[in-house]
This record gives sequence, C-alpha cells and structure tokens, in this order.
Amino acid sequence: MNELRWDPTLREWVAYATHRQDRTFLPPAEYCPLDPTEPGGFPTEVPRESYDIVVFENKFPSFVLDAREPDEPGSALTPTAPGRGVTEVVLYSDDHGATLAGMSERRIRNLVEVWADRYRELGAREEVAYVFIFENKGEAIGVTLHHPHGQIYGYPFIPPRPKKELEAARDHREAHDSCLHCDLLAEEHADGRRIVHKGEHFTAFVPFYAHFPYEVHVYARRCVPSIAGLDEDERRDLARALKRLLPGYDALFGFSLPYVMVMHQAPTGGRDHAGVAHFHVEFYPPNRTAEKLKYLAGSEVGAGAFIVDALPEATATELREAVEEAKR
Amino acid sequence: MNELRWDPTLREWVAYATHRQDRTFLPPAEYCPLDPTEPGGFPTEVPRESYDIVVFENKFPSFVLDAREPDEPGSALTPTAPGRGVTEVVLYSDDHGATLAGMSERRIRNLVEVWADRYRELGAREEVAYVFIFENKGEAIGVTLHHPHGQIYGYPFIPPRPKKELEAARDHREAHDSCLHCDLLAEEHADGRRIVHKGEHFTAFVPFYAHFPYEVHVYARRCVPSIAGLDEDERRDLARALKRLLPGYDALFGFSLPYVMVMHQAPTGGRDHAGVAHFHVEFYPPNRTAEKLKYLAGSEVGAGAFIVDALPEATATELREAVEEAKR
Repeated sequence: MNELRWDPTLREWVAYATHRQDRTFLPPAEYCPLDPTEPGGFPTEVPRESYDIVVFENKFPSFVLDAREPDEPGSALTPTAPGRGVTEVVLYSDDHGATLAGMSERRIRNLVEVWADRYRELGAREEVAYVFIFENKGEAIGVTLHHPHGQIYGYPFIPPRPKKELEAARDHREAHDSCLHCDLLAEEHADGRRIVHKGEHFTAFVPFYAHFPYEVHVYARRCVPSIAGLDEDERRDLARALKRLLPGYDALFGFSLPYVMVMHQAPTGGRDHAGVAHFHVEFYPPNRTAEKLKYLAGSEVGAGAFIVDALPEATATELREAVEEAKR
Repeated sequence: MNELRWDPTLREWVAYATHRQDRTFLPPAEYCPLDPTEPGGFPTEVPRESYDIVVFENKFPSFVLDAREPDEPGSALTPTAPGRGVTEVVLYSDDHGATLAGMSERRIRNLVEVWADRYRELGAREEVAYVFIFENKGEAIGVTLHHPHGQIYGYPFIPPRPKKELEAARDHREAHDSCLHCDLLAEEHADGRRIVHKGEHFTAFVPFYAHFPYEVHVYARRCVPSIAGLDEDERRDLARALKRLLPGYDALFGFSLPYVMVMHQAPTGGRDHAGVAHFHVEFYPPNRTAEKLKYLAGSEVGAGAFIVDALPEATATELREAVEEAKR
C-alpha cells in the first residue's frame, strides 16, 4: 500500500508505505542482501559474483510507479493520492565493509556519473516531480543495512524542504537579480573561516547558519541547477571534494562518522529553475561530540527550531584540521 | 553565548548556545540535579527536602533575557541577533522514578495550572514571541536527565512549525470563515476510527495525516487559543485525557513509552489569534514497533518528507485497546 495523505496544518504530503514495517533490519553480515551472490550461496539482490556499482528498485519502496488509487477517499480538507514514484537503491561497492570515505576518487567519480544518469532518467518520468539523491550512514542515523549504499527517491511532489529553499531562491532572484546560493558562497569565500575544502569547482563549508554542529555543504561554484548539468571537470572535482571531506569526517573523532547526505537540485519537469536551483550536497552528521548525539526532539521536531551547541567557526576549524590530518 | 543566526535558504532563525555542550548528561541516579536536596547531601537545583511541582530557569539555557549583542555581525543576507528569551525546567514531582503517566489525575491537574500560569507569565514578557511547553521523554529521544520533567521555551520569534500551522489556519479562516482545527476535529469525530479517547472537553486521536505511527493529538473541543484560556472544567478534562492516554501509551508495548510532547497555541503579543490558534497537545513517540524506532533521516531531515510505515486507522485501534487495557 503506497498512499499519500495531505496534512492541511503543515500543508504537506505524508507518504504511507505499510509493507516497509517488515523490511530487513540489520541482518548478520553473512546474510547481507546487498552482497554479491556467492556460488551456491543464498540469492541476494544482486545475482552476480561481483559487481562495481549497482542500482535497483527498493524492495520495500516508499513509492511505486503503479500505486493504485488509495482505499481512503479522504476529504476536501485532507485529500489522498496514490504514492506514485520511484525508490532506488545504489550499491556503492560489492565490498560489504567499505564506506564512501574509503573508496578511490575514481570510484566516487563513477558514482557521480551514476547519480547524474539516474537524475536524468528518473526526472524524465512524468510521475516524478523531484529526484532526491541521499545516503543514510551509520546505526545512529537508523540504517537497516550496513552494506555501503545510498538511495534515490523520485517523489511525486516537490518535498517541503527543497520547496522552501527554491521559494527563497526565487524571491532572492526577483529582489536582487542574483542567485541566493552564489551570493552565500561569495560571502563564505570572502570570510573564509568556515571553509573546509576549496577545490577547483566545488567548495565545502560549514554554513554560517548550520543546523548541526558538523554540518557541511558542498556547493558547485558555477550556478548549475543539477548534477546532470556538471561538466567533466566539475564531476571530477566533485568526486575530489567528497574524497577530501569524507576521510576528514572519519578523522574527526577517529571512527567512521555517521551522517545523512542529501543533494538539493532543480525539480524535474514543470518550470525552468535556471538561476534559482543551484546544485549542492548537504551533510548532517548526528554527532555533537565523539560520544554524544544531537537529537531532534521537542524544539526541532515540535517547533521546527534548531538549537545548536557549537559555533560553525569552531567546528569548521576542527574539520579543516581533520581533512588535513586525513591527507597525511 | 546565546546568538541567533538567520538561514536565508529556509528563512528561519537558528539558535546557538555554546555552553550547552557541557550540560549534565545522564548522571547516576544518586547525583540527579533535579532531586530534592537531602539533609547533608550535595546541593541539587532544588534546595528543599521535598517538593510538589517546581519551575526554575534552565542552567544551560538556549535563550536568556540579557543575551548580549552577538559577536558576529552577520550580513544583510545572514543577519544575527541576541538569543533573548526564557528557558525553564518544570519538575513534575520530587520522585526521581516517577513519570507523567503514573501520576495522579490530581497532580496532572496541578501541572495544567502551572503550565497555564507560565504561559501567561512568560507570554507577558516583551522578549517572548511564543511560549512553547514540551517534554522530551526517554533516552531514545535524547533526554539527558531521567527525573520526570518538562521544559518551557519562551522563543524570541514564532518558531517555524507553529508559524506554518498558524498561516494555514489563517488562510483557512479567510477561505471558509471557520477554524481549521475545529473542522479537522469535526471530521475525526464523524469518522471515529482514529479516536483514541473522547472526554467531555478534549479529544485524543491519531490524525489522518500522522507523521509518526503512534502520533496522537489532544484537541480542546472548544476553539480556545491557549492553555490559559481553558476554564476549570476544561483543565480538569485535559488532565483526565492525559491520564487516559499516557498509561495507554505505556500499555502499548509493556514499557514506559518514550515520546516528544508539545503544545501548540497562540503566539503571545502582537496580533490577535482568536479563531485561528486552537490549543492542542501533540505527542510523537519515536517507536514504530516495540523494538524499532522511526529515525528522522534523509527523507525527513533533508527533504522534509515523512515516510510512515503504519496507517493511522491501525495504530489508533491498537492505542484504543491499550487505553482500555490500562484502565483495568
């Protein structure tokens, strides 16, 4: 059952996918469904003895293309809709113990190619309004499978957070005739204290208004609406930026740092978002120290107001040092 | 240091409170700073041998009334402001092992009185734009102290989530000349399947568009903007509704259920919110099953889109049964 219900108080869709309740939950390593299928072994999701990067449809999908009309008719106030869309799994490697941070720049470069390809392909579907590329990493963030993988959701609507960002950027464009993200990036470059890595085409920084202590945004320097619009050099430099940042994250506390990674970019179909959407990657690690997590509780979930314990200038300094340390 | 920074992409304030990094974190029970002070024992936050209900200022405040001007000047795009406001702790009982669910209806009734009093008093301060009464319960939700307590934030701004709700209710009022929440409540009453408890003046239900599997909203039946506006009978019935719902929550899986409890009501100062703000309490338990938690990860945090594994009609049925079971 894949169904959408409208929340008229927050004016957003909520997606229901009841079969997900039974999804595979932290299986022992020898039963990982994302491993390659060993000769004579149990059949995993990938019927091959080895693989490079694999994309397949999520077996416990939040959205499906052929979702039927909802059983619940809803009301004028609370309409419902079929949960039509696509949810894909992207396996980064056939090595169960690998992480994105430890992969070669070359493999990450290939992954960028896969992400760009999926953005184009899913974005071309009329059911999909927004292609959302993300990774949930680490048990602290609630991953149910440890095998290195990310996900791609093709939402049938523009989700609330990117929508808010796009509205802000559109208003900024109208008021100042410039791109909000370009202007923010210019301020970060001019200030410099929150820059974590500055490559040729991408800059990684802790935003002045970070919601998480070690939050990092990776901005394309050029105002390009989506990952599909990046040229060869930019794709290579994005891989390099991730290959700088992620080992730095792991060096920060001396363990593989959990995080949520998300990509914000142009919605697909509908109006033109050039000069408004500006491709960038956002990382939210849940740790506020090596031992302590930042929980999203009353103020964050019930009021929507983030309270942060550490200043971006301080955490950016730590992260810069960690990135340097990881290089050595 | 209490400082606000403006996020121009989400158009919301982020609060920084750096001293909170060192706050007391899950101390052993014998060193609980919220216990009464024993004769000859170490001095706790309450210099008395016993107490009923106590309210005091948070020692690690997210906001303070005399916050100084920020060190960071910010920019036109990312302004800063002093983190002025009030953050209070409400001790529900001097019994370290108690929970709100286990307290007498009479004590909860007294607590309602305290909440109403604090709403009025904090709301009268010119620094405070919104009084937010909440409780984070359970380690799963990140509590740092187990002693039964709630919190009250007097924000210097209307926080994003209540703001969104108020805007939706205002637009609904203009379009239909009725209260959004009254209309939603009427639909829940007419349908009936999601009602968990129906008292004389308050109704508890799983909303049609619940974001968490066991989310429950407790609505005042009368369109009253804030807890301070409740009359005697209504206050008694609110205490009764909580005394029905909370033991039901604990009966659901047979353990003290973690939750975030928040109250949404009228902002204080400024314009009149009669007929727009409608006092209600929202509960978000993080559990999706007895053993598994609903994590806020990529889709929820990075896209703002909730994916829910269980249908409100099903969880409401379970909760109704649990409430009945707890009564016996």
